[in-house]
Amino acid sequence: MYKYLYNVNNPEDLKKMNIKELNELTNEIRKFLVRSVSKTGGHLASNLGIVELTLAFHYIFETPKDKIVWDVGHQAYVHKMITGRTSEFETLRKFNGLSGFPKRNESVHDAFDTGHSSTSISAGLGLAMARDIKKENYEVLSVIGDGALTGGMAFEALNHLGHTQTNMTVILNDNEMSIDKNVGSMSNYLLKLRTNKAYKKIKVEFENITNYIPKIGDTVYKTADKIKDSLRYIVSPGALFEEMGIKYFGPIDGHDIEELIQTFKTIKKFKGPSIVHVITKKGKGYRFAEDHPEKYHGVSPFDIKKGIQKSSKETYSSVVGEKMVEMAAKDKNIVAVTAAMPSGTGLGKFQNTYPERFFDVGIAEGHAVTFASGLAANGIKPYFAVYSTFLQRGYDQIIHDIALSNLPVTLLLDRAGIVGADGETHHGVFDLSYLNSIPNLTVMAPMDKYELEKMLELSRTITCPVAIRYPRGEAFKYKQDDCELNVGEWDLIKKGSKVALIGIGAMVKTCLKCSDILSERGINITVINGRFLKPLDFNMLEEIYKEYDYIMTVEDNVLIGGFGSSVSCHLSKLGYKGKLINIGFEDKFIEHGNVDILYDKYGLSATKIAKKIIEEVK
Amino acid sequence: MYKYLYNVNNPEDLKKMNIKELNELTNEIRKFLVRSVSKTGGHLASNLGIVELTLAFHYIFETPKDKIVWDVGHQAYVHKMITGRTSEFETLRKFNGLSGFPKRNESVHDAFDTGHSSTSISAGLGLAMARDIKKENYEVLSVIGDGALTGGMAFEALNHLGHTQTNMTVILNDNEMSIDKNVGSMSNYLLKLRTNKAYKKIKVEFENITNYIPKIGDTVYKTADKIKDSLRYIVSPGALFEEMGIKYFGPIDGHDIEELIQTFKTIKKFKGPSIVHVITKKGKGYRFAEDHPEKYHGVSPFDIKKGIQKSSKETYSSVVGEKMVEMAAKDKNIVAVTAAMPSGTGLGKFQNTYPERFFDVGIAEGHAVTFASGLAANGIKPYFAVYSTFLQRGYDQIIHDIALSNLPVTLLLDRAGIVGADGETHHGVFDLSYLNSIPNLTVMAPMDKYELEKMLELSRTITCPVAIRYPRGEAFKYKQDDCELNVGEWDLIKKGSKVALIGIGAMVKTCLKCSDILSERGINITVINGRFLKPLDFNMLEEIYKEYDYIMTVEDNVLIGGFGSSVSCHLSKLGYKGKLINIGFEDKFIEHGNVDILYDKYGLSATKIAKKIIEEVK
Repeated sequence: MYKYLYNVNNPEDLKKMNIKELNELTNEIRKFLVRSVSKTGGHLASNLGIVELTLAFHYIFETPKDKIVWDVGHQAYVHKMITGRTSEFETLRKFNGLSGFPKRNESVHDAFDTGHSSTSISAGLGLAMARDIKKENYEVLSVIGDGALTGGMAFEALNHLGHTQTNMTVILNDNEMSIDKNVGSMSNYLLKLRTNKAYKKIKVEFENITNYIPKIGDTVYKTADKIKDSLRYIVSPGALFEEMGIKYFGPIDGHDIEELIQTFKTIKKFKGPSIVHVITKKGKGYRFAEDHPEKYHGVSPFDIKKGIQKSSKETYSSVVGEKMVEMAAKDKNIVAVTAAMPSGTGLGKFQNTYPERFFDVGIAEGHAVTFASGLAANGIKPYFAVYSTFLQRGYDQIIHDIALSNLPVTLLLDRAGIVGADGETHHGVFDLSYLNSIPNLTVMAPMDKYELEKMLELSRTITCPVAIRYPRGEAFKYKQDDCELNVGEWDLIKKGSKVALIGIGAMVKTCLKCSDILSERGINITVINGRFLKPLDFNMLEEIYKEYDYIMTVEDNVLIGGFGSSVSCHLSKLGYKGKLINIGFEDKFIEHGNVDILYDKYGLSATKIAKKIIEEVK
Repeated sequence: MYKYLYNVNNPEDLKKMNIKELNELTNEIRKFLVRSVSKTGGHLASNLGIVELTLAFHYIFETPKDKIVWDVGHQAYVHKMITGRTSEFETLRKFNGLSGFPKRNESVHDAFDTGHSSTSISAGLGLAMARDIKKENYEVLSVIGDGALTGGMAFEALNHLGHTQTNMTVILNDNEMSIDKNVGSMSNYLLKLRTNKAYKKIKVEFENITNYIPKIGDTVYKTADKIKDSLRYIVSPGALFEEMGIKYFGPIDGHDIEELIQTFKTIKKFKGPSIVHVITKKGKGYRFAEDHPEKYHGVSPFDIKKGIQKSSKETYSSVVGEKMVEMAAKDKNIVAVTAAMPSGTGLGKFQNTYPERFFDVGIAEGHAVTFASGLAANGIKPYFAVYSTFLQRGYDQIIHDIALSNLPVTLLLDRAGIVGADGETHHGVFDLSYLNSIPNLTVMAPMDKYELEKMLELSRTITCPVAIRYPRGEAFKYKQDDCELNVGEWDLIKKGSKVALIGIGAMVKTCLKCSDILSERGINITVINGRFLKPLDFNMLEEIYKEYDYIMTVEDNVLIGGFGSSVSCHLSKLGYKGKLINIGFEDKFIEHGNVDILYDKYGLSATKIAKKIIEEVK
């Protein structure tokens, strides 16, 4: 079935192949990727787009001596295959299996760990300067998408790179996409570079014209010379990069392996900072993915022939999306902001319904936060929906631009808690801690769909900053009622004795399950929905601390500085004499894998919590 | 003494003046600024540089209807004067006095609070889009320095601004400086725009040439037309900005009030995104400040005639600077990184001694962190010295690029705790909390100069990430000894009974003072130097929890998620039956003012702590 695929076990094997064979290999790789990812799930479209680029890279350069940094890293599957990991793809993103991102501890060919956007030029420049200090000699390349280039730190790194003038190459993988369609003026600029075929023609014809100019008269001769010099910004179209001291090569057809190889040969000889503008098609070679690259960005297992079928699952993201549209209809001041993730955050419908009140700012969380503050300072009510892990990029801006001025911005933290297959770089397990210590913030987490809707309604009426965090995946439906939700009020869901189990957000469901398990054993515990991290329900704590021998908190967040830590400090103030047990993630990074496996491993499953309670109470 | 100064109480007063009078006013303002700041301390050089620009702005625009956002905001003194706050300058940056930064709650003319760098375009764009949504009509301007333009979020905002095409103006105040000399390829680019006087000449002469081109022959006519079109990037020199869809005006002489007024008149008529490139001289009009703008950036009171005299004080920053040079001499792999603050962080000597191992990356903390990770991943030992409050910008990068890969980067957090006059935006009171919850990090804070030196030595030998935080100002000298410093070991400095007072970092000195106060009253407490936040000294906690009725922690950080919170959680685990009291900053932003006044107000002075102990123990 595969003629070449399994014969390529390291980059050396590739170097023995001719162009025709390489082209056949690209077909086999694409076939393999579609088959493999359709079974395991994973990132598909970006990897289909980068097959030729990866092969050409490994054909010319020599890892691990030469270093390559993959921005974000979800497009490194082909790189993993070429560097001997093809046979492990059935374990992709599974617990103890192959990571979906580059990992230094997985292969010597992975020069730097990535996961978040826009880090590759910074990291690559670090590798390159270290090389220079140690007087070593090899190439450093960073592969960055046009989406990731909208992230400010990519610009910070380009600014530094142009300044150092060290030997390093940025490969700009331009597919006109972030996860969704890319936005921003940089994107327009790249489009211009891509589409203006006249550039090369102008170059030729301009030389004809300038040949005339000296003949016109001596008086303008010098000026003409200056113009000729300046015109390199036209004939070399990457003016924006060249102005920053970075040599521009391109645009290159990213699916023409011969052109790529030739370009990389040139790059290898060129010494200094350079950027190679490569045009690729996300999803290349798999029709469904070519037509809807955003749908095939990160996928669950699917049927190859039918493609991804519309899911009927109601996720927390879609609940937010629906509710936001409903609220926006009632309140003209409500706007939504996304950092390049309209679909992921469920805001697609909002975008279509209220395009003039919807802002996709690019992969730019820092700007998104301060932009939202600016909106709020001028009387608008912005909602910034963002994955918990990516909001870490806006930490300073939350403090400095939202909280300090006490502006009514609502942060919607999607994918809070552990996310599963994406692993270490994507788990949202720090947010309760980093939001907790910021003054003026109200921080809440809903136990189910209905409570999420109530929290969104509540946020409308609050005139100070709010953060609502909720997990990835299907929305739990517990109870729909008309009970009012008030800031700082927890909910005692089930009354028992001796043990009070307080969960926050998604963990309330776990606590209820745990209570069921215990009931079967004749142990009746109290279950509390600790839906506000900030402010805590001081009244309820005041009531319960005298009543229960055991108070336990459960959170899908690191323990340090989170929900349990706040409860602990308050109980200590009250002089609680019983035993407090905080359950949450210990002080380490959580690997990738099935969410239930991870919960169980780290003691956050209902059975593990029940077991702990039985041990304690017995 | 002043003919015009005190007659200008609001922007309207300015509008009645003619150019000659305005010019005289600029002299009076400069005289006033030098006198006033020489008495109170404050930001001088940047304000001297922006006098004409501010007057011209208020001459043409109408605040508070029109909005102006001052990036960083330390250059808003002239704006404060024009908007009626001249008489309050004697209280500048004092407790309950005028803030050194724009404050919405100080004046309606202050459209947005600033303090950190590179936020103004994001905030301004938010204000502008809010205006558009509400269908209002006025101008929004953001004033940003060339230094702040190196910050990634400024680029994120420009990318978004170019995309929206809304009506907004960025005033680029180009003085070739961050606080120190500005760096990066953007800076080189601006230099080129500034110095290439040929631009305007080329424009004129080029038009002569192009007039010839059509005559040359029909075949090249169309091409010539395209070239003419493209050539606007030459004749309008701001290609880099124009490529992003932002109209470039400049360069303008920032000290020619007439030219500025004319330009602002043009800007007012222009609808769309624009950038006005204004060249100013930092320190303008005060010789010492013109010669050494970095020295006169933020100043303490000084003698106008003599200028700032060299301080003999040994600060924590200078201790770091000396020690870094000493360590670098022994270890060739040690390098230092700064985000535009070589002098502020004490690294001036390192920069001069080891220029090839010193990296000033611009105001780009996110990039600095990941760049350092790249260096570390390739065998180099980087130290990133940065103010605590500014490292908040690199929070995600610390987690994602340093801690996750467990790379041996050392973060040196200067100006930790409260900083005094700079106030809310500059206090480093969140770092113990935000660092605490990051896995793999070792976090320490020295009690004095000698311990800081030991910690730096220790960091050399640790193969995982380290953070050392220390306060602004003069280094405390307690004891120099040869005792070894081991990770996670606290130091019991003074043995007493009943009460164990555990301080961290600068608070140990306070605890010692407190102990002295109590000794005089016959109360002998134990004082512990809790120098490691992470890991805590679990052994010592194990020992003391049985012995003391009261355990108290003291930290110059917010209480939530910080040192006391960690101690609390651990004591709760141990089942401590005594009373734990955590002293630190409550959950609010701390205003500006004298550090001792603030410590006392918030219960962190030795006397207040002593009082609390007496109340408790009595």
